[in-house]
Amino acid sequence: MSSSTVIAQEPQVQTNEPIVLTTGAAVRLAARNNEHTHSTSGLAPGYLQANLIMLPSKYASDFRDLCARNPVPCPLIAESRNPGDYAALQSYLPGVPDEQMARALDLRTDCPKFNVYENSQLKLAGIPDILEHWTADHVAFLIGCSYSFESALVRAGLPPRHTVLDRNVPMYRTSIPLNPAGVFMGGTYVVSMRPYKKADIETVRAITRRYLPTHGECIAWGWDAVERLGIKDINVTQWGDAPLTMDGRPLGDVFGDEDNVPVFWGCGVTPQEAVMRAELDGVVMGHAPGHMLLLDCLEDQVLV
Amino acid sequence: MSSSTVIAQEPQVQTNEPIVLTTGAAVRLAARNNEHTHSTSGLAPGYLQANLIMLPSKYASDFRDLCARNPVPCPLIAESRNPGDYAALQSYLPGVPDEQMARALDLRTDCPKFNVYENSQLKLAGIPDILEHWTADHVAFLIGCSYSFESALVRAGLPPRHTVLDRNVPMYRTSIPLNPAGVFMGGTYVVSMRPYKKADIETVRAITRRYLPTHGECIAWGWDAVERLGIKDINVTQWGDAPLTMDGRPLGDVFGDEDNVPVFWGCGVTPQEAVMRAELDGVVMGHAPGHMLLLDCLEDQVLV
Repeated sequence: MSSSTVIAQEPQVQTNEPIVLTTGAAVRLAARNNEHTHSTSGLAPGYLQANLIMLPSKYASDFRDLCARNPVPCPLIAESRNPGDYAALQSYLPGVPDEQMARALDLRTDCPKFNVYENSQLKLAGIPDILEHWTADHVAFLIGCSYSFESALVRAGLPPRHTVLDRNVPMYRTSIPLNPAGVFMGGTYVVSMRPYKKADIETVRAITRRYLPTHGECIAWGWDAVERLGIKDINVTQWGDAPLTMDGRPLGDVFGDEDNVPVFWGCGVTPQEAVMRAELDGVVMGHAPGHMLLLDCLEDQVLV
Repeated sequence: MSSSTVIAQEPQVQTNEPIVLTTGAAVRLAARNNEHTHSTSGLAPGYLQANLIMLPSKYASDFRDLCARNPVPCPLIAESRNPGDYAALQSYLPGVPDEQMARALDLRTDCPKFNVYENSQLKLAGIPDILEHWTADHVAFLIGCSYSFESALVRAGLPPRHTVLDRNVPMYRTSIPLNPAGVFMGGTYVVSMRPYKKADIETVRAITRRYLPTHGECIAWGWDAVERLGIKDINVTQWGDAPLTMDGRPLGDVFGDEDNVPVFWGCGVTPQEAVMRAELDGVVMGHAPGHMLLLDCLEDQVLV
C-alpha cells in the first residue's frame, strides 16, 4: 500500500526478533503489513487506542445520536470525514486537531484483525483487512477505550488485576438501558470489571474520572452492584476472561470480601452490541475485540 | 435594580390587564419586578426556557461532570461565567454565543419563583428572589427543559395531552441509574410522561430527537415501559399532575390501550434530585418547579 511509505521512518522488522512497537503509527504500520496480528493491549504505551465501527451511511446519523446520548459507554472520539473516506478523520476530542488523530491512516488495514457482519450476523472473524468489504458508502466511528486509563492506574500503583495476572479484562452484559436513538433501540450497557480493595475505590474513581472520552469514572462498585447491574454470575463473563483473586480462585468464591470489590466501567463493546441488536441491513465492520486501532494522540490529551 | 433599565423598552404593565409576555427578556423583567409570579408554561412561545441550579463552587466540577455523563436527563446548556457572577453566562449551545443567551440578566431575580435548600433540606419554597442567599461563591447551571420540544409537537398536530387538558406534565422517579460523578452518587432518572397513540410514537420520536440539548427523543415508551422504569403506579406522579385520558379517567384505568400509550422523556428535575441526594453542605438554590428562567435564544437554535 502506497500510503505506508509516508511513515517509512517507523521501525520495519524483517527478523524473528519480537517486534517493539512504541508509537501509534508503528502499530498501525505493523498491523497493515500483518507483522502484528495480536491484541494491542500494552502496545505503544501512552498512545490512545480506539474501538472501530464501520456502518452503511444511512445509519450514521442515528449512531452519532446514540453516542451523544450515551457518552459513558459510547464516547465518540472521531469519525471518517466523509462516507467512503478511509484515510481522513474528523476529531471530536477537544484540543486535538483532525490531522493529529492518525497520520497516513488506512482504516481498512490498520487494526491487527477485523470482524465483518452481514445483516447483523457475524460473517468473518479475525480477518487481517477489510479491503474487499469497505465501500464508498461506509462511515467509520472511533470510540474511546478503557486501555487509556489503565496506564494511569498502573502509574498510581493500582494496576488492574487482569494486567497483573496477564489475562483479558472481564466484560459483562448488564440490564442498564441505553438511551435509545433512532434505529438503535433496546440496547444495554456492557461493562468492564476490575476488582479493587474497598479502601482504594475513591482513589480509583478520582483517577479515571478525568478520562471522560475513554469512559471516565466507574459507573458502579461494590458486591451489591453485581445484582443491581443484572449480572447473574460474576464468574461468568460475556467477553474477556473470568475474574480471579490474586491467588487464582474465581472472584465469586470470595463474595463480600472487601479486598476484592468488583468495580465496573462503561465498556466500548456497548456500541457494537447496540449495532448488532438493531438488526441493520448490509455490511457492518469493526476491529476484532482487543485488536484496537492505535492513534497518534496521547492518552493524556483526553484528560479533562 | 439598576440593570432593569437596560431592557426598559420591554412592556411595563401597571394595570390589572393580563400581562402579555412575548419574549424571553420580557418574562425575565416581569419576574424580576414580581409582575409575573406563576408558571412559565406557554409564555413567550419559541423562546428557550431553562432549569436553574445554583451550587457552592466546590461542587461545580462534579456537577459539570454529572451533566457530561448524563446528557439526556441533565443537558447542560450554560453556566455562570465565574463564581458569584449572576449576570454573565457561558453558553454550551453550539452556535449560540455567550452574549445571546440572556441580555441584562440577573440570576437572583429573573425566575418567577425560587427554592432555597440548606444542607440538602428545603428551607424556603416559592420565594420571589434570592438576593439575600446568593453569594460570591455560588455557581449557576442552566439545564435544558422539555417545554422546548412541546411547541414542535403542537406544530405537528401532536400536542402533549397535559397541554390540551391544561394540566402540569406528569413526572416520575425511576429506577434507571444515573452515571455517578464525584459527590453525585446513587441518583436515578426522573422522567416526564406524555401519552400518545401507538401509531404516532415514531413521529413523536423523530420530532423530539432533534432537540438534543432539551432532552431529545423519548427514552422509553409502551405500557411495559412503566414496570421497566420502576414506576409503581402510572396514576401516582412524584411531581406534576396525575395523567388522564381525554375523557378524564385516570390513565392507569386504560392499561394496555394503544390509543393511550405512555411515552417517557428525560426530565430536568433529575439534576435537582441528584443534588438533593448528594447531601451537599451549604446553600443550594434553584427555580421553583415550573417557574423557569427564560432565555433570549430560540428553541429552534438547539435543533441538531
